[in-house]
Amino acid sequence: MSDMLAAGRRILAQQPFSVLLGAELSRFEAGLAELTIPMRHELTQQHGFAHGGVVSYAVDNALTYAGGSVLGNCLTAEFKISYVRPSIGDMLIARAQVLYAGKSQATCRCDVFAVRDGKETLTATALGTIVKVAEAANG
Amino acid sequence: MSDMLAAGRRILAQQPFSVLLGAELSRFEAGLAELTIPMRHELTQQHGFAHGGVVSYAVDNALTYAGGSVLGNCLTAEFKISYVRPSIGDMLIARAQVLYAGKSQATCRCDVFAVRDGKETLTATALGTIVKVAEAANG
Amino acid sequence: MSDMLAAGRRILAQQPFSVLLGAELSRFEAGLAELTIPMRHELTQQHGFAHGGVVSYAVDNALTYAGGSVLGNCLTAEFKISYVRPSIGDMLIARAQVLYAGKSQATCRCDVFAVRDGKETLTATALGTIVKVAEAANG
Amino acid sequence: MSDMLAAGRRILAQQPFSVLLGAELSRFEAGLAELTIPMRHELTQQHGFAHGGVVSYAVDNALTYAGGSVLGNCLTAEFKISYVRPSIGDMLIARAQVLYAGKSQATCRCDVFAVRDGKETLTATALGTIVKVAEAANG
Repeated sequence: MSDMLAAGRRILAQQPFSVLLGAELSRFEAGLAELTIPMRHELTQQHGFAHGGVVSYAVDNALTYAGGSVLGNCLTAEFKISYVRPSIGDMLIARAQVLYAGKSQATCRCDVFAVRDGKETLTATALGTIVKVAEAANG
Repeated sequence: MSDMLAAGRRILAQQPFSVLLGAELSRFEAGLAELTIPMRHELTQQHGFAHGGVVSYAVDNALTYAGGSVLGNCLTAEFKISYVRPSIGDMLIARAQVLYAGKSQATCRCDVFAVRDGKETLTATALGTIVKVAEAANG
Repeated sequence: MSDMLAAGRRILAQQPFSVLLGAELSRFEAGLAELTIPMRHELTQQHGFAHGGVVSYAVDNALTYAGGSVLGNCLTAEFKISYVRPSIGDMLIARAQVLYAGKSQATCRCDVFAVRDGKETLTATALGTIVKVAEAANG
Repeated sequence: MSDMLAAGRRILAQQPFSVLLGAELSRFEAGLAELTIPMRHELTQQHGFAHGGVVSYAVDNALTYAGGSVLGNCLTAEFKISYVRPSIGDMLIARAQVLYAGKSQATCRCDVFAVRDGKETLTATALGTIVKVAEAANG
């Protein structure tokens, strides 16, 4: 495991909400981040799919990590999420990448996939702005 | 309690993720919905504020309820959230209202407030689209 | 006319695209800005309504002015626009207001109305981020 | 030229605002659309760059075309645009693609590039929703 991934995981372990959801940082490199959330009953809505709020959490946090990979301490200032399909599967994967980074902010994209029987299906896509802060709140 | 609020609460109680977060439907009328989330350690990020994912959950669900108040069964197709301040307080309140409703979709706005010592502070604001579905997933 | 409005109009007159569209700055105060665009054939799409691009121009520029009213030199970093009705009328009015302003950026909302026989109808609503820049491009 | 591109160009020629801006439909196939706008003084803001409203027009229209390539008659319901760099160059190119299409709506992405000395630079990126309508207004 890279030092960067290890450091990212330590921060995630310090986020009680990320621990509650069971999120894992599966990839963390300059310009990209990947969060994985194993599905379980507690994360669903009334029809058995992952709740939209779980998906938006994944987007929010993956975007912050992607931005943080190039900006350092930062927070998600805003994002737009489009839900395209119900999230059905054993796992959610949120993959975020930096599209543009200036000195103090980055524009990042995030795609969320539901994984079922090893097959990934796009369930949501997002676009957001991450801003560097002196003493930031990652998330 | 109105029949509408009671019905809304039954749906919320059927969303395991909403139960996990402790969300309560505090208001539900034609054109508006209000969700309240008592803060607790499990909902925070590493600096002790409410995690952005909790705020985005509140937006997602309050938007769906607001849209649902005029459309019936529906789901949140997309939203954009702007975080304006850290969410510090004992409680989060998400208030969503319908700005425009057609036959099959509604444009709704949502403001999220952190409540501390009885004082409300705007922490995030959002704008989204809610679409009617035959057999919808509220959330 | 206030000095602020006069200064705002001088900047608008320096934007060739705003001149091409015939936009007028009808209000400009701390925290808010209003742009007015008289409708004419050149601004329509194939069905005779104002083109969505005219509406998005109005949003972009009104947001920049609203943010600029509190931040000084600034530019629109991003916005989300929801079109709610076709823009039919003699005039478009875009009203933007600051929801939150920090030292270097502001979150602003903008509503666009089509005016017909003196009656205003909401045609679009938007939410965006305006950032202060040393030597900024207003628009 | 394909029949589809020719048909798309006929619609563009019927949009007075697109004619005013000098936009050209340079590509139009199932799932994607490309609009090109030669730069000229009338399209700039006070610093000589393309006005943000020109860029948002390009996004709005390219998104509608991309969605229309799979849905038929449609309109842009909403989009979010992030400006990442000033638009400097001889030409703007907006490339939109369909990320997901259902029966009545599509989620599309659009990237806008400024072209200078033959080199393309990303200037804005957007994400939006296009909805099918019986008798729609493309744009």
